[in-house]
Amino acid sequence: MRIAVLGGDGFVGWPAALHLSARGHEVVIVDSLVRRAIDGELDVQSLTPITSPKERRDAWREVTGRVIPLERIDLAEDYDELKGWLGRFRPDAVVHLAEQRAAPYSMKSARHKRYTVDNNVRATHNLLAAIVELGLDAHLVHLGTMGVYGYGTVGAPIPEGYLPVRVDLEDGGEAAQEILYPANPGSVYHMTKCLDQVLFAYYAKNDGLRISDLHQGIVWGTNTEETLKDPRLVNRFDYDGDYGTVLNRLLLQAAVGHPLTVHGTGGQTRAFIHIKDSVRCIELALLNPPKRGERVRIFNQMTETHRVRDLANMVHAMTGAPIENVTNPRNEAAENDLVVRNDQFLALGLEPTTLREGLLDEVIEVARRHKDRVDPRHIPCTSAWTDAIRRRMEEGGRPALRVVGG
Amino acid sequence: MRIAVLGGDGFVGWPAALHLSARGHEVVIVDSLVRRAIDGELDVQSLTPITSPKERRDAWREVTGRVIPLERIDLAEDYDELKGWLGRFRPDAVVHLAEQRAAPYSMKSARHKRYTVDNNVRATHNLLAAIVELGLDAHLVHLGTMGVYGYGTVGAPIPEGYLPVRVDLEDGGEAAQEILYPANPGSVYHMTKCLDQVLFAYYAKNDGLRISDLHQGIVWGTNTEETLKDPRLVNRFDYDGDYGTVLNRLLLQAAVGHPLTVHGTGGQTRAFIHIKDSVRCIELALLNPPKRGERVRIFNQMTETHRVRDLANMVHAMTGAPIENVTNPRNEAAENDLVVRNDQFLALGLEPTTLREGLLDEVIEVARRHKDRVDPRHIPCTSAWTDAIRRRMEEGGRPALRVVGG
Repeated sequence: MRIAVLGGDGFVGWPAALHLSARGHEVVIVDSLVRRAIDGELDVQSLTPITSPKERRDAWREVTGRVIPLERIDLAEDYDELKGWLGRFRPDAVVHLAEQRAAPYSMKSARHKRYTVDNNVRATHNLLAAIVELGLDAHLVHLGTMGVYGYGTVGAPIPEGYLPVRVDLEDGGEAAQEILYPANPGSVYHMTKCLDQVLFAYYAKNDGLRISDLHQGIVWGTNTEETLKDPRLVNRFDYDGDYGTVLNRLLLQAAVGHPLTVHGTGGQTRAFIHIKDSVRCIELALLNPPKRGERVRIFNQMTETHRVRDLANMVHAMTGAPIENVTNPRNEAAENDLVVRNDQFLALGLEPTTLREGLLDEVIEVARRHKDRVDPRHIPCTSAWTDAIRRRMEEGGRPALRVVGG
Repeated sequence: MRIAVLGGDGFVGWPAALHLSARGHEVVIVDSLVRRAIDGELDVQSLTPITSPKERRDAWREVTGRVIPLERIDLAEDYDELKGWLGRFRPDAVVHLAEQRAAPYSMKSARHKRYTVDNNVRATHNLLAAIVELGLDAHLVHLGTMGVYGYGTVGAPIPEGYLPVRVDLEDGGEAAQEILYPANPGSVYHMTKCLDQVLFAYYAKNDGLRISDLHQGIVWGTNTEETLKDPRLVNRFDYDGDYGTVLNRLLLQAAVGHPLTVHGTGGQTRAFIHIKDSVRCIELALLNPPKRGERVRIFNQMTETHRVRDLANMVHAMTGAPIENVTNPRNEAAENDLVVRNDQFLALGLEPTTLREGLLDEVIEVARRHKDRVDPRHIPCTSAWTDAIRRRMEEGGRPALRVVGG
């Protein structure tokens, strides 16, 4: 398959590109490299020493003999370049990971909110418009988020994208119907993935585009089979309060002797997936495209759910690191349940990589190896969802440690 | 009330600004004047000879003694100017009409699709971000569209924004809930109003913004009490295939001796509202804001529904103009029913202006008076929803006239 991986220099994009290249697909990365620029803006760096775009692709060629070209295009800004390149490459599939993907970053300021909305909506819509304008029949595989559902809006497990509902009719009867699950985003970033859903539904309906939307849980881990083949292929590992994901952050904190920071009571239940499964799911979606005229195919790309405080307690039990409950910067319920269906990927053969001590140890080991690269100032989450929360965080100061089992 | 009317130079914005100014509110128009520029792009002009922004505002001052300043700001491009001005004016309410509002224009080409999405989403989101950044407690009244509902997705009347549904639970029970009505837009333009809804729901939830969204039907008529006070106050009247609305177009066609163009069978049922009621509804919404923390208040701003072919037959009966059935440029069902609730505006005192011969005659009279300004090349709708439809329109050529009652 000829596959364009948009955002292929990023945390999920890079291992996905390698995974697909290793399986014999003709892969081209399209990336503006803005994620590396944001490291500069935030004055932070990946825990792992990622190499330059050229060095990592050279290394892949050295190790495997396979070539992955890079097209440096900003999807949101360079429509003509995007269209020109797509028209020449004519991919069978486009994996779209080219969005600003951090909720805390999206809430830092009006500028960050506006950047996230402008960038993500324009990138996605430019891509859709280009596919239609070119008459391409490429399968579009997009990385969504479990965050489009919020905590779920009803007391039933979260289905894969579509919710069967019944509506009362005037004559006393009722109508049954499947609807797109009601959007309930928890941040401006998550909101952009809800906007994407509306774009996808329209272009699938009006233009017959074939689209799969993968609502991913929180990714943890850093290595995949392919990134382990050479140190220069190492994947990025974000530990900072903006881009770091919760489980990786807890493991990093344990490794560097920082208290395990838990927002509020830690009663938030979240969906998780290991990076190895993330790239495998993308491959499975690519191998199983919808037909033309079919509605958007929506997958829940996650393997298990956990409460944040349970994860913190687990890491505490493994490492002895103390737990610190801090003011939650997010505007969300303190406690929520979350039951999620993921039958489709299981039926397609996904064998979930679940939280095991071995894999958790591997992450801690990576964190220990590179601990000299950690800037402790970047560990706390400082991006507040509202001004009122910001004031509460500032007034609260640094709460006393609550050491579990200490 | 201090009211900012964004898009206040446009078809609904201008009479709305006058209506609110006449009732003693302190009104400022914010407009980029892009709508006038688009007339140039399309090489078409308003049927009515609208005066310059300065001349029409000078006339209003002469006639009424009231001043309506104009701030020339592009909401989508000039965030800092928008924020700066809002921070100085500190309006009690913002009426947001500053979006590209023609479905056919939005479907003309990839450029037009992209412009419509970029402009509308950025304008709306910039406004929301600015209100939050400034800590303004302004009531935001936005003009949505009945098109967010499509034809309705269930066999029940379309409620005002929120649909009560029931969901089966795993234990055999069921959960009842009100959800935002499932979006089903019929064009890229309509899609942007669905995107707006997601933005509004989020900012109402996270930031407590007070927002009313008015899902308007197709506007007909051109004069209001205020625009009739002086010829220089005349409202714009679009008759062209991109910006003209269906009933006004049929009346114009009858006035200039053009066949009444009906797309497909004319079996499409649409919601309608007269321009006088449109501005009255905006005022009613302004007088009845939601409370802080309340969900977005959604109104259906329409007074009646009609099938397009019934309107054509009515205009034919009034004028003898022949009816021409042409290939439908839109990708939509040939026939649909539409039952819509509009209880809220009725309860607030709206007295609907319905289709009466007198008002229809008034529109024909306006059209006859300015018929020398009509360019017949611009009467047909040429913007096709898909390439396949475009080919069908080109191959079909100009179908034979089907004269009803001839």
